[in-house]
Amino acid sequence: SRFEYVRTYEQDQVLLPNTYIVIRLDGRGFHRFSAHYGFAKPNDSRALNLMNKSAVSLMKQISDVCGAYGQSDEYSFVLQRRCRLFDRREAKLVSTFASTFTAYYQFYWHDYFPDQPLVASMLPSFDARAVQYPSLAELRDYFSWRQADCHINNLYNTSFWTLIIKGGQTEKEAEHTLMGSNSADKNELLFSRFGINYNNEDAMFRKGTMLIRDISGAPLQTQNPSQKDHIALQKKSKRQVEREEKKRNKAEIVESHDDIIGDNFWRESYKWLS
Amino acid sequence: SRFEYVRTYEQDQVLLPNTYIVIRLDGRGFHRFSAHYGFAKPNDSRALNLMNKSAVSLMKQISDVCGAYGQSDEYSFVLQRRCRLFDRREAKLVSTFASTFTAYYQFYWHDYFPDQPLVASMLPSFDARAVQYPSLAELRDYFSWRQADCHINNLYNTSFWTLIIKGGQTEKEAEHTLMGSNSADKNELLFSRFGINYNNEDAMFRKGTMLIRDISGAPLQTQNPSQKDHIALQKKSKRQVEREEKKRNKAEIVESHDDIIGDNFWRESYKWLS
Amino acid sequence: SRFEYVRTYEQDQVLLPNTYIVIRLDGRGFHRFSAHYGFAKPNDSRALNLMNKSAVSLMKQISDVCGAYGQSDEYSFVLQRRCRLFDRREAKLVSTFASTFTAYYQFYWHDYFPDQPLVASMLPSFDARAVQYPSLAELRDYFSWRQADCHINNLYNTSFWTLIIKGGQTEKEAEHTLMGSNSADKNELLFSRFGINYNNEDAMFRKGTMLIRDISGAPLQTQNPSQKDHIALQKKSKRQVEREEKKRNKAEIVESHDDIIGDNFWRESYKWLS
Amino acid sequence: SRFEYVRTYEQDQVLLPNTYIVIRLDGRGFHRFSAHYGFAKPNDSRALNLMNKSAVSLMKQISDVCGAYGQSDEYSFVLQRRCRLFDRREAKLVSTFASTFTAYYQFYWHDYFPDQPLVASMLPSFDARAVQYPSLAELRDYFSWRQADCHINNLYNTSFWTLIIKGGQTEKEAEHTLMGSNSADKNELLFSRFGINYNNEDAMFRKGTMLIRDISGAPLQTQNPSQKDHIALQKKSKRQVEREEKKRNKAEIVESHDDIIGDNFWRESYKWLS
Ligand SMILES: Nc1nc2c(ncn2[C@H]2C[C@H](O)[C@@H](COP(=O)(O)OP(=O)(O)OP(=O)(O)O)O2)c(=O)[nH]1
Ligand SMILES: Nc1nc2c(ncn2[C@H]2C[C@H](O)[C@@H](COP(=O)(O)OP(=O)(O)OP(=O)(O)O)O2)c(=O)[nH]1
Ligand SMILES: Nc1nc2c(ncn2[C@H]2C[C@H](O)[C@@H](COP(=O)(O)OP(=O)(O)OP(=O)(O)O)O2)c(=O)[nH]1
Ligand SMILES: Nc1nc2c(ncn2[C@H]2C[C@H](O)[C@@H](COP(=O)(O)OP(=O)(O)OP(=O)(O)O)O2)c(=O)[nH]1
Ligand SMILES: O=P(O)(O)OP(=O)(O)OP(=O)(O)O
Ligand SMILES: O=P(O)(O)OP(=O)(O)OP(=O)(O)O
Ligand SMILES: O=P(O)(O)OP(=O)(O)OP(=O)(O)O
Ligand SMILES: O=P(O)(O)OP(=O)(O)OP(=O)(O)O
Ligand SMILES: [Mg+2]
Ligand SMILES: [Mg+2]
Ligand SMILES: [Mg+2]
Ligand SMILES: [Mg+2]
Ligand SMILES: [Mg+2]
Ligand SMILES: [Mg+2]
Ligand SMILES: [Mg+2]
Ligand SMILES: [Mg+2]
Ligand SMILES: [Mg+2]
Ligand SMILES: [Mg+2]
Ligand SMILES: [Mg+2]
Ligand SMILES: [Mg+2]
Repeated sequence: SRFEYVRTYEQDQVLLPNTYIVIRLDGRGFHRFSAHYGFAKPNDSRALNLMNKSAVSLMKQISDVCGAYGQSDEYSFVLQRRCRLFDRREAKLVSTFASTFTAYYQFYWHDYFPDQPLVASMLPSFDARAVQYPSLAELRDYFSWRQADCHINNLYNTSFWTLIIKGGQTEKEAEHTLMGSNSADKNELLFSRFGINYNNEDAMFRKGTMLIRDISGAPLQTQNPSQKDHIALQKKSKRQVEREEKKRNKAEIVESHDDIIGDNFWRESYKWLS
Repeated sequence: SRFEYVRTYEQDQVLLPNTYIVIRLDGRGFHRFSAHYGFAKPNDSRALNLMNKSAVSLMKQISDVCGAYGQSDEYSFVLQRRCRLFDRREAKLVSTFASTFTAYYQFYWHDYFPDQPLVASMLPSFDARAVQYPSLAELRDYFSWRQADCHINNLYNTSFWTLIIKGGQTEKEAEHTLMGSNSADKNELLFSRFGINYNNEDAMFRKGTMLIRDISGAPLQTQNPSQKDHIALQKKSKRQVEREEKKRNKAEIVESHDDIIGDNFWRESYKWLS
Repeated sequence: SRFEYVRTYEQDQVLLPNTYIVIRLDGRGFHRFSAHYGFAKPNDSRALNLMNKSAVSLMKQISDVCGAYGQSDEYSFVLQRRCRLFDRREAKLVSTFASTFTAYYQFYWHDYFPDQPLVASMLPSFDARAVQYPSLAELRDYFSWRQADCHINNLYNTSFWTLIIKGGQTEKEAEHTLMGSNSADKNELLFSRFGINYNNEDAMFRKGTMLIRDISGAPLQTQNPSQKDHIALQKKSKRQVEREEKKRNKAEIVESHDDIIGDNFWRESYKWLS
Repeated sequence: SRFEYVRTYEQDQVLLPNTYIVIRLDGRGFHRFSAHYGFAKPNDSRALNLMNKSAVSLMKQISDVCGAYGQSDEYSFVLQRRCRLFDRREAKLVSTFASTFTAYYQFYWHDYFPDQPLVASMLPSFDARAVQYPSLAELRDYFSWRQADCHINNLYNTSFWTLIIKGGQTEKEAEHTLMGSNSADKNELLFSRFGINYNNEDAMFRKGTMLIRDISGAPLQTQNPSQKDHIALQKKSKRQVEREEKKRNKAEIVESHDDIIGDNFWRESYKWLS
């Protein structure tokens, strides 16, 4: 039709080839959402497991995702450097991830909150953004950033709610008690006043959840990006691409709640970061 | 933490101020999705009404949306020129719209398809994109483009499925019958062979659905963008903004299935395009 | 060659269709540059006329430029909404304008500074940026912004240097004298202490320089952007485009030093903004 | 002023941190330009040396440039991964490089073409673009791409002009003679018909010109980008940055005309790619 020229106003933002793409989703207004559905404080295992279930489901559907890290109301998905999903168009990526995750979260809601039916005025939704990292060093630092954030928030929240629930303080008082305290102080406070060894708290609360697609059983041909690989990349036959995708689809998604800041975790990154 | 520098790799794509923003959502793989859940062919009123319900719900939640147009598995939402939602950050906009629409679609699914429970392996999801139009002329052409697309597809699909269902043709034969036919030919075919006056078909099928937020009852202070307005824009007090938002929230969402290509519809655009 | 894939990493930033594009150039380090070549203070007519000469030359070469405004070490060029130059690729536009302007500035240098040969360690160069404005109101405000900037700087500089040159103050003292003074104060100071009526100062110093390509003698077919025009735009024959370009090439470049903030100037904008 | 809001329409395109940035300049319309000033065919040493002189001058002025490669009417400059020049703003980078190079090219013109004064209607100008490469492998392929391009064009041009100048063919005939010939054919043709050993042709013609800033004598503290470096990067004191800049400024710019496709050249890349 004579109106089709309006199509030319669409401007695709295309992400740079050969960077790691991280897509981070975050629950919209989960402060209110968690209050409305009575999430346990500071951590609700049902809520976190629902997040994990949704993330695993998404990873099973979208095989370009190598790994993911989740904590609180957020999840970060990492796409392999070579990923060509949606030709790396940013809007397609972030909208599809946000939509897909939302669909799973709502679908599985009942399994985790059987007594709390969702109501129309308070449905879960997530925003999403895509970030590019040119090298593995930065990708690693990205994950460290999120886990450090998890640690700091959780140590604070654990102390805060312990002071309230077990210590009988008001929220104001608890805030005041913790003001200016560092990590050691909080550990000490939990232990000396409440007999709580923070390190014995649930690892999922303290460390968040790491999901990897374990392709070590089904090794793919692709290795580190090098000159030859790039050319290979251009020429990979459709069949090759499909075969690899099938392998990725079959690979297991492995969940863990360990430290991802230290070297240990990254020594085994060949397992999931092809 | 020492990892926070990774934050600086986030590059917000910000849409130009004072353009109309159109956010178009489109169902992912609805060819398969509609087949799986047995959508009526070529048009399923339940499916279209569910789309409309979801769009109205989204508009009630996000008051920056002035109007929307839907057909098939897609919906286009238009934001007012002055819209500051998410500071016009593209990823926030498209991901939030995709997520929110998905949530409503799934939530209301049961109301429209009570006999077809959703299954985990076939959940509805939507991609989204944002397009900017600098002037009203182009925004209008955008809507005309979508409605013309609706018309062309629907006339074809109606003819196609009539040939099969009423005419007893196979899909191959119907395709062959219609090859090279123009609009007049198809109208003629429907009428002479099947006694169907295409213009009597359901207006929602032929014209799609237009939703406007009717603010004519509650006129806002904002007018055409002019020098003074811009300055006003900068200086609008928080209270003013909130007052306007309240008005927008109260305004009714009006549904219609009329021609939006001709002048008539646009003569009344003051009602919804402030 | 097998290396050509690197080409795919080029990401063109394309400006939105149908917006006014303003390309602003600004002299790099002209504080030092003007000192090195002994520019008169606060205004050097030679320098300003050389800027104007370069801008006129650029406009003669690049016919998509409708008008331009210059002051101090900067020049802003406005491209017509429909402009397709370099397919609106931003990097092409800003680099070409910067390069072309630099070439003229250096070429004509000798005509304006015959006694000050350029030296390799202090060559003139300019950065450039492209800004998009969706409507005429904003384009007008853009020009007003630059002229207001010219006025404020020039009134200050004129007062400052008069205090020094005629008033015998040091730079420190002059700065101190002017601290906290408004426009009226400065006008008064110039008049009462030095008998200078600021309004009698050279208009080029006070108002800057406006250049328009006067196409009123050779009217082009293109009018306000409207639905029909857009379609026309798509279909314009190569010959039509070339004919228009020829007309634009022949059109005179008219220089003025008048107020461009008030309505008067814009009433006649049909002359140059097609 | 009340017009300043127009400033908010400026949208900086910022290049991703920690990628190699290549800025490629290319002469605008050098087909005509070279004809107008009588460049020797197929290669004019004066023209190429002027390009080199301009590139070296630019590198001396802008110390963030590590290396550069030039051939024909183009030059590619590579910035170190950590480069913060203009905060990596694309428009600033491309416009400044284009302007600066243009200024040097024109300034030194007389030294290389003393008998061919520039005329106003035919001044040299250059466009520029910025391309990002996430890894060294791609950066290397980029340089290989440009040198392979140089080789292919130069072998063709040498054969073409030899057929004309020494072989007495017309341009049409020469084109016809070379149609479908591969590299070996052209080498053979040059040798058997004209006694020309292509490998004895001027290396600058065959290989182009590589310029590196040799920092091996003045080693900087910066190494491969790693986790620690990134943090270091954030915290580098102003003084440290200035000291490094000084070292870079003192480092020699080394010119060569060798193969840059094989491994040899890249083995020594520590010398210039910090
Ligand atoms: N009680 C409880 N709250 C949780 C849990 N996980 C997350 N939340 C809440 C705590 C925070 O208020 C909120 C996450 O913080 P955000 O910074 O994402 O803020 P919020 O989602 O409210 O706003 P946003 O739309 O993301 O800007 O979710 C949980 O397991 N239990
Ligand atoms: N039977 C039936 N099908 C419908 C109805 N509305 C939409 N569809 C189907 C017809 C098309 O196959 C599909 C919409 O076409 P699209 O171009 O959006 O393709 P699809 O969603 O399959 O793929 P995509 O992920 O958007 O690229 O949805 C309906 O009311 N009834
Ligand atoms: N004496 C004298 N100086 C002038 C004249 N026109 C411009 N300038 C100088 C005054 C300012 O120091 C400078 C323009 O200010 P800018 O803000 O553009 O700064 P500058 O070019 O030094 O740095 P930049 O590279 O643009 O950030 O040029 C003139 O006619 N006479
Ligand atoms: N005779 C002669 N011509 C040269 C020499 N170096 C470059 N040229 C000419 C040959 C080509 O026609 C032209 C470079 O080709 P380009 O693809 O850059 O095209 P051109 O600059 O004409 O157009 P453009 O504005 O870059 O699209 O410059 C030389 O040393 N001698
Ligand atoms: O999705 P299609 O096939 O209708 O066409 P499109 O939406 O223009 O394509 P894309 O979704 O890839 O932008
Ligand atoms: O959402 P917040 O407040 O945790 O912080 P953010 O996600 O960095 O902010 P934004 O969502 O606006 O990018
Ligand atoms: O300029 P050309 O024709 O050599 O090819 P290009 O540089 O790739 O094209 P463009 O300058 O338009 O990016
Ligand atoms: O260059 P300045 O200092 O006048 O200010 P600016 O031009 O707004 O800053 P930049 O050149 O960095 O965009
Ligand atoms: Mg957020
Ligand atoms: Mg949140
Ligand atoms: Mg959060
Ligand atoms: Mg699509
Ligand atoms: Mg679809
Ligand atoms: Mg569709
Ligand atoms: Mg500046
Ligand atoms: Mg300047
Ligand atoms: Mg300036
Ligand atoms: Mg080119
Ligand atoms: Mg060229
Ligand atoms: Mg070239």
